[in-house]
This record gives sequence, C-alpha cells and structure tokens, in this order.
Amino acid sequence: MRRIGVGLLGLGTVGTGVCQALKNNRDVIVKRTETLLEIESILVRNPEKKRLVEEVQDRITTDFEQVLRADIQVVVEAIGGLDPARTYVEKALEAGCHVVTANKELIAKHGAELEWLARRRGVRLLFEASVGGGIPVLGTVQHLLKSNRIHRITGILNGTTNYILTRMEEEEAPFERVLADAQEKGYAEADPAADVEGFDVAYKLAILGRLVFEAEVPVSRIPRRGIREITPEQLRLCRRLGYTIKLLAQGEQYREEGPVSLQVGPALLPLSHPLAPVKGVYNAVHLEADVVQDVTLIGQGAGEQPTASAVVEDLCNLFRMPAAPGLSPSRDSFLLPSDDDGGPRFVYLEAGEPLQISSPAELCRRLQKIGLAVDGAVIHPEDGCRGLGLIFRRWDPSYPPILLAELGLEGVRLSTLPVQDLPFTRELSAAQAGIPG
Amino acid sequence: MRRIGVGLLGLGTVGTGVCQALKNNRDVIVKRTETLLEIESILVRNPEKKRLVEEVQDRITTDFEQVLRADIQVVVEAIGGLDPARTYVEKALEAGCHVVTANKELIAKHGAELEWLARRRGVRLLFEASVGGGIPVLGTVQHLLKSNRIHRITGILNGTTNYILTRMEEEEAPFERVLADAQEKGYAEADPAADVEGFDVAYKLAILGRLVFEAEVPVSRIPRRGIREITPEQLRLCRRLGYTIKLLAQGEQYREEGPVSLQVGPALLPLSHPLAPVKGVYNAVHLEADVVQDVTLIGQGAGEQPTASAVVEDLCNLFRMPAAPGLSPSRDSFLLPSDDDGGPRFVYLEAGEPLQISSPAELCRRLQKIGLAVDGAVIHPEDGCRGLGLIFRRWDPSYPPILLAELGLEGVRLSTLPVQDLPFTRELSAAQAGIPG
Repeated sequence: MRRIGVGLLGLGTVGTGVCQALKNNRDVIVKRTETLLEIESILVRNPEKKRLVEEVQDRITTDFEQVLRADIQVVVEAIGGLDPARTYVEKALEAGCHVVTANKELIAKHGAELEWLARRRGVRLLFEASVGGGIPVLGTVQHLLKSNRIHRITGILNGTTNYILTRMEEEEAPFERVLADAQEKGYAEADPAADVEGFDVAYKLAILGRLVFEAEVPVSRIPRRGIREITPEQLRLCRRLGYTIKLLAQGEQYREEGPVSLQVGPALLPLSHPLAPVKGVYNAVHLEADVVQDVTLIGQGAGEQPTASAVVEDLCNLFRMPAAPGLSPSRDSFLLPSDDDGGPRFVYLEAGEPLQISSPAELCRRLQKIGLAVDGAVIHPEDGCRGLGLIFRRWDPSYPPILLAELGLEGVRLSTLPVQDLPFTRELSAAQAGIPG
Repeated sequence: MRRIGVGLLGLGTVGTGVCQALKNNRDVIVKRTETLLEIESILVRNPEKKRLVEEVQDRITTDFEQVLRADIQVVVEAIGGLDPARTYVEKALEAGCHVVTANKELIAKHGAELEWLARRRGVRLLFEASVGGGIPVLGTVQHLLKSNRIHRITGILNGTTNYILTRMEEEEAPFERVLADAQEKGYAEADPAADVEGFDVAYKLAILGRLVFEAEVPVSRIPRRGIREITPEQLRLCRRLGYTIKLLAQGEQYREEGPVSLQVGPALLPLSHPLAPVKGVYNAVHLEADVVQDVTLIGQGAGEQPTASAVVEDLCNLFRMPAAPGLSPSRDSFLLPSDDDGGPRFVYLEAGEPLQISSPAELCRRLQKIGLAVDGAVIHPEDGCRGLGLIFRRWDPSYPPILLAELGLEGVRLSTLPVQDLPFTRELSAAQAGIPG
C-alpha cells in the first residue's frame, strides 16, 4: 500500500467535491490502485467560513507555505484563474511536488512552461479536469488512442452556452431572456462574458490543440465568436434545413505534424452528426482519427462531482500511468482558419420588411443559374417573409453583393455561420465504413 | 527503444487491419510509446490465398508451433470462435507470451480461467477489441474511471441489429425485409442468429459485467431476447410516445460488491436518453457512476480499422499501462433480473380487427380508475384502430387479464418491452446536477 499526501489549494466547489470523493470512495481507490490518498493541508482564504466537509477543518490554513511544509507529494490546485494560482503551481513544482489542476485558463496560457518546469523537476502536471469536466477526454487521447493520428476534433465544451442554445431552440426564446433566466438559476455567471463570448471554450481548445496536435497556439490567436448574435429565428430556419446550431470548438490538422487550424464559434451541425443531440449542460468531444475512425465522448462538463472525478482520477494515475512523451510543439505550424475558407456556409438574410421571395425551390434554381451552388433554402415566416436561410455548398466573400443584386434586396442584414460536415462525408469509402458485427 | 515481436493468428478482416495499422502508423507508435511492434509470424489456414498486405507474405505459416518458436513476446489472436482459438491462446499464455485478442465469445466464456492462467505465467491478456470495436470502453473503465463506483451500464453493442432497427424505424419496413437487404449488402451474416438473437451482445455484456461489476456470470444465465419480434408498428407507436426501441445490454449493481443484474433485449429508450440518437452501425456505451455522474462513449463497433485500432492500442499498452488488480469475482452475487421487476413497461396490444377504443386520453383515465398507472397511450392507426401502445409506470404479471377485461378485448396479442429511464430521473438533486461552466 502506497500512501500519498495531498495538499489542496481552495475549498470551493471543486475542492469540496475532491474532499468528498476522496472520503466516500476511499475503499474503491485503495482496492483498485493500492494507494491511500490523504489530504494533509488545505489552503483557504477565509478560515472562519462554514464548510460542507467538516472533518477537514483541522487541516485548514491561510498560509500557502504551510501547505508545502506538510507531508505531501501532490498539490491539487482548485482555486482557478491566473493569480495566485500560477505562482502557487510554480512554487509547488519547484518544491518537487506533482500538481493536479482543473484550471483551464492557467493551462491554456502557461501550460507549456509549467510542463517544462515539471519535467525539469522530475514531477508531473496533470489537468484532466480542465477540459470537459468529468469526461476523460485527455486520458482517452493520451492513453487509449495513441496509435491513432487524430486529424479533427470537434467539441461542445461549455455547458452554459449549450444550455442557453438548447433552451433558445426548444422554447423559441431570445438569447437575452434565456441568459437572464440562466443567471437567476445559477447556471450562468453574473458576468457571462467568459462563457457566451467563447473565452472558456478557447482555453479548452488551446489545451486540446497542444495535446492532440502538439500545436502550441496562444489563446489570443484562436479565432473566437460567441453566441450573442444567434437568434431563435436562425435556430428555427436551420432546423428546417436539417441542422442545429452549437457553439463549437473545432481543431483540424492537415497531416502529421502539419499545419493546424483551431477556431471557436457557433456553427451548424447536421442533425445526424453525433454532437447534434448533445443538449443542456452536457459537454461532448468528437474525435476523427485514421484507424479508429470516429469516437464521441459525452458527459457533464462541469459541476462539483464530475470535476472532482477528473481530479481524483488524475491523483490515482500520477504514480500508475506512463507520462506522455516530451512534446516538441511545432510553434510555426499554426494556420489561421479563414471565414472565407471556401467551405459550406449558412447564410441568413434578415429584412426589416416583408421580402418578395418566391418559393425556396424557385430561389435555389435562380441562384444555381448564376453559378451559386445552394444545398437548401428556407423562408421564414412563409407568409410575409422577413428572413431567409440558405445553405451554400461553398462560400466566397465576393458572394454577398451578387446575392443581394440577384434577389433585388436592399437594407438587408446578411450574416453567415460555418457548416460542419458529417464525419466521413469527405472521404468515405466502403472499406473504411466497415462491416458491422 | 523497445522492440516487441508479435505473432499474429489469422489474416482475415481483423488480422489484415492490424498489419496495415502497424505498418501505416509505425512512426506514430514509435514516437509516442518508444516501442517498435514487429510482426514476426502469421498463422493462416490457406497459404496460397492472395493477401491484401503483400509484405507479410514471407512470414506466413500454417503451423501454430512455428509462430510460438518465432522471436515473439505477444500473440494476437484474430481467428474468432472457440476452437481452435482457445487452444492457441492457452498455449501462448503457457509459453509465457502476452495475448491480445478481439474474441468476444472466447473471453465471455473462458475469460476468467484464461486470466488466471496469464497471471500464473506472469503475462497479460488484453481484449479491448472484444467489446465495442474501436470504442475504448474497457480502457476507460479500467484506467480512467477507477475511482468511480459504476452502478449501471447500458449499451448498444451490436452494429447489425442497430442498423436493422434504424432502417425499420426510418423506412417503416418489416424486420425480415430489412434483414434480407442487410444480408445482401454484407451488413448481416447469412446465418444472422448470433446478431439478431442477441448472443453477440450477451458475450459483450458478460465481459463488461466481469470488468465493471467484478461479477462472473455464465453467458447462458444472462436473460436474452432478440429483435425478431419488433415490428415497424411498435417502433412508430413508441416514437409517438417519445421513445425509440434499441437492442440493449443492461447491467446494474445495487451496491459495491452487491448483487448484479445483467440482461440483453429490446427496450424502449426515451428520445432524450444519450443512447437514443445512436444510429446505424454505431455502437455506444452509457456508464452511470457515483462521482462522474454519466459518461457516454460512441463509435464504430466493428469493421477492419476500428477493431484493429483497439488491438493495436492493447499492444501499445501491454508494457506501459498498469495491470488491473486481481479480481475476486463474486460468483454468488448474480441476481436474475425478472421480466416482472415492477419497472416501467411498454405494452403493445395487436388485434386482428379494428378495436373499438376511444381516445388515448380517455383510455388512460379508464385505466387509472382501476388502479393501473399509465404514463402514455397511443392508438394506431387513428382510424380503425388495430394496435394500441401503452406505457405503464409499473408493470405486474397479473395485469394482462385485468387490462383485457377492462377494455373488453378478446383474441388480442399482448406483448411487452421494458422501458429504460433517463439517467438521474430516479434520484436527481440540484447538487448532483451541478452548475454548468
């Protein structure tokens, strides 16, 4: 039996969940890993605060140095944010402690140098909880798909925005109203920018990009759009065209060690895409790889218990699972994705007054005639049309004036969203599809 | 750099896939695991047969002993079936070789004794490919969720039957016609019993039961129903009630080391269940656990490449991942699930001639009045009703005569299917649901 002393930084949602999981599942952990994980010291800001887990009261301190002086081999960082978390993690690694963290911002922005520091000190830095909460996505990529070349990842990595989009679609309610309600219910922060503007997703995508593609991409260089401009009308039109709108993290690598594209933003998913049915606060990741073909992981992306699960699994793995090989991130391999990448695009035209538009089919034919390949069109509402949704097979930034001129439209607001294709539709062959059994 | 010699038994679909993956992804495997996996010898039945992978021609033999005499540390068994696979695997283990296999029947029926043999010889037996094809479900349970108590598993583990049910639902086509077409396309075997009668799923569930619940359950004791009796009418009525029908592998454990229930059969899934959207040849597993809450894994459950992926991942993990602790399967913990378990049930009444039934709502009220709790009713077709679908909140084997008498029905065929509840609906609390982020 191995005994491991743990120093815990922070006793908020995640810290409390970790205390409870270590207590409640102590027997399972001992049986399966022959390891006793003991919390020796807990750093808090306010020692007077009433705690959910009373039995740790005697190990509480407000002095970080005291945590390091305790009999510990691992520090669990559950404070969040950059400061003072970064300093503490650096000091813990310097002191020869392993570190397990749920801190996506810290790992996204400083993961590379922290990993380098850990390697230099002969310790490990694990951060499963930083992406997808309880879903073991990093472990799956690192340990269970390592003979595969993963060439595309698509993720729903923020529960708050997925919850908002789900309710907007189901209730046909506008963004602001659903957001206000989510804030009231505690499902969204008072300042919702990190979620709804896509920052949170960008952190997670940066982490995935480093792990999956070995691409070290500064978060600030990841193109990012939020969901504020999505309307229930767009959601309704998309559904009638066979799509849903999700806030997606998208990463693609064009060959092994080749250029990488990362982007965050709302995009259309075909209703038959494995991520399309992922609703509410659930998170999910879809991986496309050369041997396994595609794997989807779905689970709860946040919350006390799921996040604690990922932290505790990291603690169990520290002394059991092999370290990932030292990465040689290819810093120059980053390819900026373009909004004008020539891929399929949903185009939404919104007029102040009813549009004089014939039927969707007639509209498609007119656009085909002038050389614009349209895969679908829908008019909303049918009588007294004020909105128009079109799926372009390929999109080019030169199209808007052509489109508006052909339709004889003025004073119309045109917005576009990328459309994600189905796995395999680009290169499906019978052999790849395989025979089921 | 470690060099591992591999002896391959069988060069059919899986064996060919393994050869190709080891060749095509050699660089990735070397980079990430510092291991060179070399196929040294391949056992085939017919050495004259033209092979897809030509470069292994010089290592082909028809003599099993010659494989063992080659410079190998691992045997990959890719023959399938019980004989001679079982003998070969035993001999390989006896000879001190690790074994990786995709053979679900062998592991389901003889896994326990083969593991015991492997342990005694100080080698390992890995079989990720035996359940869910490319989906790393066994690895996830063993390595990435080991601090969790998993209390329920629900799986779609057979691509052929899921393909058939998907097409029956989408095309409203009868079982026999879809099966015949699937056979013609090579999606179903000439003798479809293993798939459509649920044997294949029972093998996989037995393996999962041993791994997840430490329950050693003989395959023959797993209650098993196939999909032959499912009709497009049932599928249509279920959908109108908010459900779909899937061939499910269901396993439940009522407390740590407590009694276990395993069963295979068609069951209703609420359309919002994470497994409901899994279509066609895809497989999926839904895990419910005490800390992580629930995780769903979806992927291709068969086919040359996905299966090869799982085999090759096992090869990479042989010398890297920790062995699972020795199991102490609780042989007496098996609880036979009952068709009369008091859970929710879909009841289908099929008459030869039109039924004189009032509206579904009226029907529910009548049944409530005599003490039968009905959550939904649907009549098909509305005009000249010949079929009737009911969702009972709880089902009891004494109900059919009461039901038929109350409705004044005679000569009516009554069949029932269990209904799977949503994760958490039994004990959801706000704290468990957590706050998204």
